[in-house]
Amino acid sequence: MCTRPHPAARKAAERFLAANPGDPATYGTVAELEARAVSLLGQVTELPSPNGYVTSGGTEANIQAIRAARNLAETDNPQVVAPESAHFSVQKATNVLGVDVEFVPTDDDDRADPDATRAAVCEDTVLVIAVAGTTEYGRVDPIPALGEIAHTAGARLHVDAAWGGFALPFTGHDWSFADAPVDTMTIDPHKLGQAPVPAGGLLTRDAETMDALAVDTPYLETRSQASLTGTRSGAGVAGAVAAMEALWPAGYREETERVLAEARWFAGELDARGYDVVAPELPLVAVDLPERLFDALREEGWRVSRTRRGEARVVLMPHVTRETLRAFLDDCDRIA
Amino acid sequence: MCTRPHPAARKAAERFLAANPGDPATYGTVAELEARAVSLLGQVTELPSPNGYVTSGGTEANIQAIRAARNLAETDNPQVVAPESAHFSVQKATNVLGVDVEFVPTDDDDRADPDATRAAVCEDTVLVIAVAGTTEYGRVDPIPALGEIAHTAGARLHVDAAWGGFALPFTGHDWSFADAPVDTMTIDPHKLGQAPVPAGGLLTRDAETMDALAVDTPYLETRSQASLTGTRSGAGVAGAVAAMEALWPAGYREETERVLAEARWFAGELDARGYDVVAPELPLVAVDLPERLFDALREEGWRVSRTRRGEARVVLMPHVTRETLRAFLDDCDRIA
Repeated sequence: MCTRPHPAARKAAERFLAANPGDPATYGTVAELEARAVSLLGQVTELPSPNGYVTSGGTEANIQAIRAARNLAETDNPQVVAPESAHFSVQKATNVLGVDVEFVPTDDDDRADPDATRAAVCEDTVLVIAVAGTTEYGRVDPIPALGEIAHTAGARLHVDAAWGGFALPFTGHDWSFADAPVDTMTIDPHKLGQAPVPAGGLLTRDAETMDALAVDTPYLETRSQASLTGTRSGAGVAGAVAAMEALWPAGYREETERVLAEARWFAGELDARGYDVVAPELPLVAVDLPERLFDALREEGWRVSRTRRGEARVVLMPHVTRETLRAFLDDCDRIA
Repeated sequence: MCTRPHPAARKAAERFLAANPGDPATYGTVAELEARAVSLLGQVTELPSPNGYVTSGGTEANIQAIRAARNLAETDNPQVVAPESAHFSVQKATNVLGVDVEFVPTDDDDRADPDATRAAVCEDTVLVIAVAGTTEYGRVDPIPALGEIAHTAGARLHVDAAWGGFALPFTGHDWSFADAPVDTMTIDPHKLGQAPVPAGGLLTRDAETMDALAVDTPYLETRSQASLTGTRSGAGVAGAVAAMEALWPAGYREETERVLAEARWFAGELDARGYDVVAPELPLVAVDLPERLFDALREEGWRVSRTRRGEARVVLMPHVTRETLRAFLDDCDRIA
């Protein structure tokens, strides 16, 4: 789900290969760039005064969102409720943090089910997780409804838009801080944002969330550090800013419209060949291919992976063109 | 504690700005490079068949070492024992992981005290942490003695050589997997290893430690993932390999000898001016400067920071030359 970085982003990243945003008093320029990155991410996600930071990726941001909810809650047995479609980093995060997690079945269209979510929350629930662009099917959960369920239960709402975040502003989905009572959000510039790896993002509506993550930092000339990792990538921060400045909003809009059109065309072509296709809503096509064909395509070098139900996942990142898709279809036809 | 990357490392990093070692089946070249990085780190730390991976830095590696000890232990109340000189990431890690930590006072020379450590371990102790090159004073703890205490108590031994690891092979200290019963070690190529940020390292003596960190990874074409973060930096991995191939062992030896000589010269110059200097053992000089002078030096742009006791910390990373140190001393003389 990563892509070729935007040329301006690559250039910016190369200038900051030795800078550490984890030590802002020493690396002042990159600290300013990080503030700029957070501000730009606030524009993308419709949060006028954003708090947050540039993470190593979606996993770190998801860990931190759950950690903040755990640290801010009163309960001794914190529990997180997430759809079964949530990224596997949620499982990792709850293992790391010692938090219980209840995975709720999704509906027939692979979206979080509000009724099942309501039934799963309890007095120990500290966080409900919603996904805006699932890893397997590119689905967007009913985020406003999940937010109401979370807040009614005294829990927080986290939206994982790690992959979908830079496409969603140009679709009709309700997903942003303006659309729903979102407390924290994961959104990764290094995926559809076309920044170089590693550049993820954690955004929070309030400053208290960052305080809940902070630990003291002796021998740095700053008071505290709220990130999960210590040393962080200056290249990622600088690259993220350069990519967003180059592409937000017109470039991302154009790219989203292009890849969405390609996804629909590609899904139609697969359907016409008799394969079961999951109708795409974001630039990701899941298609039921025979196992032998899937294996042969991997061997040909096609970077497709598999959903848990066994469909092939084709992610139409910005570097994917009609020509690439045609070559893939040609290989399908030849091998099948 | 970061430095200008070695030119070969920078070049290698630039080639892999879009590659993700977190998805080895898709990014095969960088996965091979990561295996090479771990093998080279094994040479540096005297571990013939190393397990481990390239982390985002020392903080991630320390979190993971504590997480593995927690996950492998039987107790419901896991406790970690660390010297008070341990890096602040230990505090962060225990907060993240929900593990108790007991910080043990250091001796008069700022090293972990074996007697105090022995008194602090209990039946819930899962890990004893030793530091090989403390952040504040560059001290190396009595690692063989701490290893014996840990193993006698049924706990594991973790060595944090994040900063010192690439200098220690050329000193007389006992610190490596060959010198002591070390279970896990943190060693960061992006510090004295001259790799670009982010490239840290976690090494483990046995494969079970990595298993204790693994979570399932649906929709990746690999079975599991043991890293803390998900997407990781291909640039960091490629840069680390290039730096180690260029510099291990002769280049690191030469650099260590040069900066150690500079540190001793610099400490002598400060001492001659009447300032209290902590005698350097690794390329780090702590010196008691008047507060006004410290603040003025920061304002002049000198990237010095402070120990918890208030000394100025000057870290002699590979980019620091005699000329730089002379300019610093000149500024001290002018301002004082």
